[in-house]
Amino acid sequence: MIPVIFRRIGRASAVLVFFWFGGALIFPCAIRAQLITFSKQDLADYTAKEPFERFPDGRPKVPNELLERARDLNSEEIWATLHEKGYNNQFADGFTILHPGKPLVGRAFTLQFMPLRQDLDQVAQQKAKEHGLARLMNQTAIDMLQPGDVLVVDIFGKKVDGTVVGDNLFYYVMKATNGGGLVVDGSIRDLNGISEIDMPAYFKSADPTPIGNVMLTGINVPIRIGNVTVMPGDLVVGDREGVYFVPPQFIREVLDRADEIRIHDEWTKKKFDEGKYKSSEIYSTPKDPKLRAEYEEYLKKRLAELKKQRGEN
Amino acid sequence: MIPVIFRRIGRASAVLVFFWFGGALIFPCAIRAQLITFSKQDLADYTAKEPFERFPDGRPKVPNELLERARDLNSEEIWATLHEKGYNNQFADGFTILHPGKPLVGRAFTLQFMPLRQDLDQVAQQKAKEHGLARLMNQTAIDMLQPGDVLVVDIFGKKVDGTVVGDNLFYYVMKATNGGGLVVDGSIRDLNGISEIDMPAYFKSADPTPIGNVMLTGINVPIRIGNVTVMPGDLVVGDREGVYFVPPQFIREVLDRADEIRIHDEWTKKKFDEGKYKSSEIYSTPKDPKLRAEYEEYLKKRLAELKKQRGEN
Amino acid sequence: MIPVIFRRIGRASAVLVFFWFGGALIFPCAIRAQLITFSKQDLADYTAKEPFERFPDGRPKVPNELLERARDLNSEEIWATLHEKGYNNQFADGFTILHPGKPLVGRAFTLQFMPLRQDLDQVAQQKAKEHGLARLMNQTAIDMLQPGDVLVVDIFGKKVDGTVVGDNLFYYVMKATNGGGLVVDGSIRDLNGISEIDMPAYFKSADPTPIGNVMLTGINVPIRIGNVTVMPGDLVVGDREGVYFVPPQFIREVLDRADEIRIHDEWTKKKFDEGKYKSSEIYSTPKDPKLRAEYEEYLKKRLAELKKQRGEN
Amino acid sequence: MIPVIFRRIGRASAVLVFFWFGGALIFPCAIRAQLITFSKQDLADYTAKEPFERFPDGRPKVPNELLERARDLNSEEIWATLHEKGYNNQFADGFTILHPGKPLVGRAFTLQFMPLRQDLDQVAQQKAKEHGLARLMNQTAIDMLQPGDVLVVDIFGKKVDGTVVGDNLFYYVMKATNGGGLVVDGSIRDLNGISEIDMPAYFKSADPTPIGNVMLTGINVPIRIGNVTVMPGDLVVGDREGVYFVPPQFIREVLDRADEIRIHDEWTKKKFDEGKYKSSEIYSTPKDPKLRAEYEEYLKKRLAELKKQRGEN
Amino acid sequence: MIPVIFRRIGRASAVLVFFWFGGALIFPCAIRAQLITFSKQDLADYTAKEPFERFPDGRPKVPNELLERARDLNSEEIWATLHEKGYNNQFADGFTILHPGKPLVGRAFTLQFMPLRQDLDQVAQQKAKEHGLARLMNQTAIDMLQPGDVLVVDIFGKKVDGTVVGDNLFYYVMKATNGGGLVVDGSIRDLNGISEIDMPAYFKSADPTPIGNVMLTGINVPIRIGNVTVMPGDLVVGDREGVYFVPPQFIREVLDRADEIRIHDEWTKKKFDEGKYKSSEIYSTPKDPKLRAEYEEYLKKRLAELKKQRGEN
Amino acid sequence: MIPVIFRRIGRASAVLVFFWFGGALIFPCAIRAQLITFSKQDLADYTAKEPFERFPDGRPKVPNELLERARDLNSEEIWATLHEKGYNNQFADGFTILHPGKPLVGRAFTLQFMPLRQDLDQVAQQKAKEHGLARLMNQTAIDMLQPGDVLVVDIFGKKVDGTVVGDNLFYYVMKATNGGGLVVDGSIRDLNGISEIDMPAYFKSADPTPIGNVMLTGINVPIRIGNVTVMPGDLVVGDREGVYFVPPQFIREVLDRADEIRIHDEWTKKKFDEGKYKSSEIYSTPKDPKLRAEYEEYLKKRLAELKKQRGEN
Repeated sequence: MIPVIFRRIGRASAVLVFFWFGGALIFPCAIRAQLITFSKQDLADYTAKEPFERFPDGRPKVPNELLERARDLNSEEIWATLHEKGYNNQFADGFTILHPGKPLVGRAFTLQFMPLRQDLDQVAQQKAKEHGLARLMNQTAIDMLQPGDVLVVDIFGKKVDGTVVGDNLFYYVMKATNGGGLVVDGSIRDLNGISEIDMPAYFKSADPTPIGNVMLTGINVPIRIGNVTVMPGDLVVGDREGVYFVPPQFIREVLDRADEIRIHDEWTKKKFDEGKYKSSEIYSTPKDPKLRAEYEEYLKKRLAELKKQRGEN
Repeated sequence: MIPVIFRRIGRASAVLVFFWFGGALIFPCAIRAQLITFSKQDLADYTAKEPFERFPDGRPKVPNELLERARDLNSEEIWATLHEKGYNNQFADGFTILHPGKPLVGRAFTLQFMPLRQDLDQVAQQKAKEHGLARLMNQTAIDMLQPGDVLVVDIFGKKVDGTVVGDNLFYYVMKATNGGGLVVDGSIRDLNGISEIDMPAYFKSADPTPIGNVMLTGINVPIRIGNVTVMPGDLVVGDREGVYFVPPQFIREVLDRADEIRIHDEWTKKKFDEGKYKSSEIYSTPKDPKLRAEYEEYLKKRLAELKKQRGEN
Repeated sequence: MIPVIFRRIGRASAVLVFFWFGGALIFPCAIRAQLITFSKQDLADYTAKEPFERFPDGRPKVPNELLERARDLNSEEIWATLHEKGYNNQFADGFTILHPGKPLVGRAFTLQFMPLRQDLDQVAQQKAKEHGLARLMNQTAIDMLQPGDVLVVDIFGKKVDGTVVGDNLFYYVMKATNGGGLVVDGSIRDLNGISEIDMPAYFKSADPTPIGNVMLTGINVPIRIGNVTVMPGDLVVGDREGVYFVPPQFIREVLDRADEIRIHDEWTKKKFDEGKYKSSEIYSTPKDPKLRAEYEEYLKKRLAELKKQRGEN
Repeated sequence: MIPVIFRRIGRASAVLVFFWFGGALIFPCAIRAQLITFSKQDLADYTAKEPFERFPDGRPKVPNELLERARDLNSEEIWATLHEKGYNNQFADGFTILHPGKPLVGRAFTLQFMPLRQDLDQVAQQKAKEHGLARLMNQTAIDMLQPGDVLVVDIFGKKVDGTVVGDNLFYYVMKATNGGGLVVDGSIRDLNGISEIDMPAYFKSADPTPIGNVMLTGINVPIRIGNVTVMPGDLVVGDREGVYFVPPQFIREVLDRADEIRIHDEWTKKKFDEGKYKSSEIYSTPKDPKLRAEYEEYLKKRLAELKKQRGEN
Repeated sequence: MIPVIFRRIGRASAVLVFFWFGGALIFPCAIRAQLITFSKQDLADYTAKEPFERFPDGRPKVPNELLERARDLNSEEIWATLHEKGYNNQFADGFTILHPGKPLVGRAFTLQFMPLRQDLDQVAQQKAKEHGLARLMNQTAIDMLQPGDVLVVDIFGKKVDGTVVGDNLFYYVMKATNGGGLVVDGSIRDLNGISEIDMPAYFKSADPTPIGNVMLTGINVPIRIGNVTVMPGDLVVGDREGVYFVPPQFIREVLDRADEIRIHDEWTKKKFDEGKYKSSEIYSTPKDPKLRAEYEEYLKKRLAELKKQRGEN
Repeated sequence: MIPVIFRRIGRASAVLVFFWFGGALIFPCAIRAQLITFSKQDLADYTAKEPFERFPDGRPKVPNELLERARDLNSEEIWATLHEKGYNNQFADGFTILHPGKPLVGRAFTLQFMPLRQDLDQVAQQKAKEHGLARLMNQTAIDMLQPGDVLVVDIFGKKVDGTVVGDNLFYYVMKATNGGGLVVDGSIRDLNGISEIDMPAYFKSADPTPIGNVMLTGINVPIRIGNVTVMPGDLVVGDREGVYFVPPQFIREVLDRADEIRIHDEWTKKKFDEGKYKSSEIYSTPKDPKLRAEYEEYLKKRLAELKKQRGEN
């Protein structure tokens, strides 16, 4: 990305740069200077069912060991549990996937942008100033990222001027999140440079323009990505199909169900490999009670192995 | 639309019905029960430049006489002033227009929907209950509409289950806003019935399903319609091209400029009708100093007439 | 449309012309010469629940008086009953509507086209010949149309060369069906001429080319229109939103429910007009038990009037 | 449209304004200052087969009486002749049609725009100056329009900043062409104002922005509209389906064939009205030799009547 | 994919599961229980020109050695022969290609789905029962696959609920067809799992939902894939451009022509490599008679070598 | 691709073949036979600012050493300079990229096609003949390519029949341009064969049909690719985002700026790697004066190294 000192900046870009750096040294202050606010109390109220710890700012903190287990998840395994719970709006697709084979897993850190409107922008700037947030001296939203985070950005699908990061900031996000990842309902810049950085990313398009003509209106507020309402702290899982946003209260169940699904598939393929059965004799459930018993036995044994392997007892 | 008492309601619809009626008897209470909040103070801060009165809830109230004058505005006339001010994100199009010849003019009353997510929904319901808002006994957001309002709804372009109103509620909106109008980034229902009701409406699609699988997350909060950030109280003007959202502080200037543009066009056509001039001799500015003077004279005279006609001095 | 005698016909068109006239003098013979067959027995089996008479070829024949009542139906009223029955795939939209205000009502007469493939085409021709159907001497599928029919054509959305009728045949369809109508998942020709003919029509596009490069593969077989499986004899109802295909067994229930919905809307609007109530007090169900009783009374009375008016007792 | 004297003009618009007025007082000079040139000799060479007179600048001039006869043409009638001649790339559609019932007929006056590039622009300006064409003192391309012309503009589908005319210039075009018409592969402005002007127009979109960020690169050069290569002087015919561009050498044949088609349709409908025949017995050619003879007789008689009516002998 | 025993199944899914397993233990029975039928005799009649053996159910059986030769074919080589024969509707594209470099070659095994309609579904179920096909005890259509088959599925482009296979069944298809392949005008599930399985596949989209809200209406009936009428037994060839469906009677000619094209290209490139010729001197036909003779010689020699290599004499 | 001697050629294809070979042995002659002409003088006038040598036909010749340096450029680096110069219409995207990791760099050699129109075609043929250009004996436009060229083709996005090259000609282009490259606003053929050839290519689609139904109307004339006006001799640079067309006069500045951007990024990443700084402390400009000085020092040193490395002093 282009160093600011080398270019003349038009007014619109200046606004952008401000907003980009419009996060906060001290989080609560930043929150106050946003057009859309969602307080620590709001976070606590609306995510009351999440069973884990929280970050100081109230965001649910899915434990690292579950993030680790979640690296094996795919969309279809998550669908099984969420569909049963009646959560059918948690999947988004239609993205360009930067590294298709590489799993995306992490905690949602959300950003919301809206089309620039100077009257609102000027008030937000003034509010920022009153909270002691000088324009270019402050940390950006990106500076608030934590290891294990996935940056999830709603910039309403904007392509031109909707490039949330270029390769420099993408690199920084990778460092700060420890390779967490990026999901953008919008575009990115420097696709060549970004392609060489080893962090999963999902975006709608790429464009040579820098971000502009927008304002950052919310950090860690509820946002819309496609047909999903994403909450800060959601478990984000991306595979070759798209991205799932899992409410924290369902994560354990999703992971346990996924174990069973994977063992089931393992056994099914083994049986298919024997070449003695038609698919319908084995799948999705063995017809023959003896085979079924064999499967149940296998499932039990493999689950126990998995548990042991994970050091659970 | 279908009376509830005659149908069995599935779970998802039930949720919807709740949210639909999730507005508030007493406005401040309603605000508290929303996922996205924007307080009276927020409204005051972010619309500080608006020069008019306000509604009790803080929403700017463009005076009726200006609404009246605005009925003659079209997109191109508004563009002239807003472009000069650097406001290039105030126009949205791509709508089906219900009554193409009929102007849409009024004060924005905004609604925001997000994809349904039961965990958030249940908390919002609980909050509503705590504020004394029983589910089906309360007024809806629509019950809060005032004469001169235009209902502007961000339901993220949803078609199936994204039908914000059918003909019954459309009729009520017409009554409540005194024919103000409707703008929906989403769909409507009962197009046949709605077509017979004399209120301007702009929507993306029509569908036979009722609204569902969404939650009402904000009443009179800043919303996105296409590439526009719409604020409660904005002047909404729709013509055959699309819809403009004018920040209140620019309305007088827009109207005055429109007077000049219309007089200019009047004079230009008159000159063209004489058949003596090539277009470039007259338009956009007369080349001949004498003609130019003639035009300036005409403009002055007509502006004076207009002023007199409006009872201004 | 262009008289054949005045033009030289390329090979592909010739094929087409054949198929167009590839219907049958005697229906069962025509059936035999089709690539896709659906026998009278098939029709009887698969529409066993339809409660009305049948045409000689087995197609369900919704009675004329029900067709008459159905002229007042709209999409949303049909949705209510079919949704309750679990039939959610009976609506198709995305059409250009020829005469938007004019209701489309009739019995489905279905045609299916597939992309031309000469090897299949030649066999079908040969079969036709063996059944005594000489090429240009036979009646077309269109010649089999009956008063009250709506011609429903699946030509896989084809635009160029997918023009099922021009103004001449459109006129004939109008005469033969007594103004029944046309639904085409494909295109029509001679839009200017067709616009002047008083029959409702729904089509995807218009094009100056004649139909070609396709083969007629089924007459009165089950077809797909958008997301609907259409059966011969379905009640077809089109309004400003799109087209509903109602299985005959549900028609009475749809019509009765529609009566109630219309009375409900009538009463609701009347109440809104009084200006004393908020929408949620009245709609969709009156909150106040007294009002509710008033409504129930009104409904009962109006239903009785309707019944009387229709000569039912 | 907005008078220039009332607005500050940015650099891009200024360029535009120049190009707009970049036509020529004296045509040959204008030609020289264009990026793409097509000389009088080129015109003569490439339209050598056109059988009519020419304008002074070499453009074919279809006679007024043929324009008059062409007002009854529709797309399908033109298709018949051009298809036979092997001209299958003369039809463009996908337009918004301003006045759907009103026929568009006239001689093509073509304009070509390309995306603005200042280095080319500056050279063209310099060339203009050298030919004595001062910037704002010269006539525009529009000033060159003649009665009976249809302005056909290739502005590569551009919507924003691609608005070739607003209501003022549209009005002038109407006056100058005597209601000829407009075809734009791009957008127009002031749709409200334009809707009230009685001239046929075909365009891809409407937008509130003025034209900008483009340069006028050719006046009366060969252009592309959709899948058509349009030549200056082509007969332009628009109906409800789209627009046909007829090379002048085929106009008489198109018109004569259209007479026969119309008489054929007249007779066909008359026969259908008798209600005695199946469609295939009559259309497209009567099967019965007696009927056929009747038709031939009818055709002969009506053609003679038409001829007489037109004063031909 | 998810084992049935672990999930509660909604009604719609149940229907689906039935149909999925709605194939037949004994083929003729399965045929009878389908909405759309195409008998062994129909197959024989409509593919009478195919020169090879047939499967017991009548499907043409392109010999294995030709399948082997066909692995080198690409779209352009097939186009050459089919275009000459006048078969211009045999190519479909717009697919996501699972393993772009891997050729898809095999015999078409076709499936047709239509939108679910319970009245038809229930009759089909009843018919299945009458033919001794118990719901979950029977083999699926997939169980009928043979080595060398390509499963070709018309599920009308459906994405959500249109996922014909997940990774378990994809694996089984791979085993059963011996790596034959899959073409779906619809979607697949478990893209991550499927990506690791070494079988070519062409599909329109991927989705986490299981198949549902559809009914299997035909096994080995004529189907539509894009603009192609596909017949059971067609040779299916997929490359990086898309998929060709070759009627069996043309296979030998296609292969022989492809030999010549490949030798021609070989020679052409060799000549280009010499760097002495302009492209037009060599391609597509050498201008110089001596060069031409050289080429003819080369072709003859190489064809002989190929023949020898294949053990033909 | 298919040798002509083995196929019967239809008339349309013949025309195409002609045009393809319609370039010229002697360039000025070729120019005369084109519908759209752009003379050597035109080229000189409109590219007067280009600072380099020219080809004999007047096309600017960016020096080889700059082409070499340009191989490291990406879209975003070019944007920086061109945006500053006010050139915002030089980037095109939406292409399929043949070898995504491989940079495209070279001098634009432009071709323009228009939809076939036989009357124009025949005149062009006649003109060609008069200039001594026999039909199939002459060099094609492709025969005029030079090492370092990128063939840039405007064929108006045509897919079917819009395949500018197949693998034979693609191979020849690779040889003739020394691996320069291809950009087509249209399609290519033989994607399988082309994929194995090591030359960068950008195209809109692939199709098995050969080119046809078009005419070559300009060689090295100004053309439109997306929203860009491309001039012969422009520097073409393609990366993973799309293609930039750089006017020659800006190339040095673009390259120098790119050096600085790359050094800036290098330093920024190094600093991020230290893990001591928030992104906003470093990027885009270090806040701390000491850090800033460190950066300036680094930049100076690295620029000197680069210069030395390139043998500049």
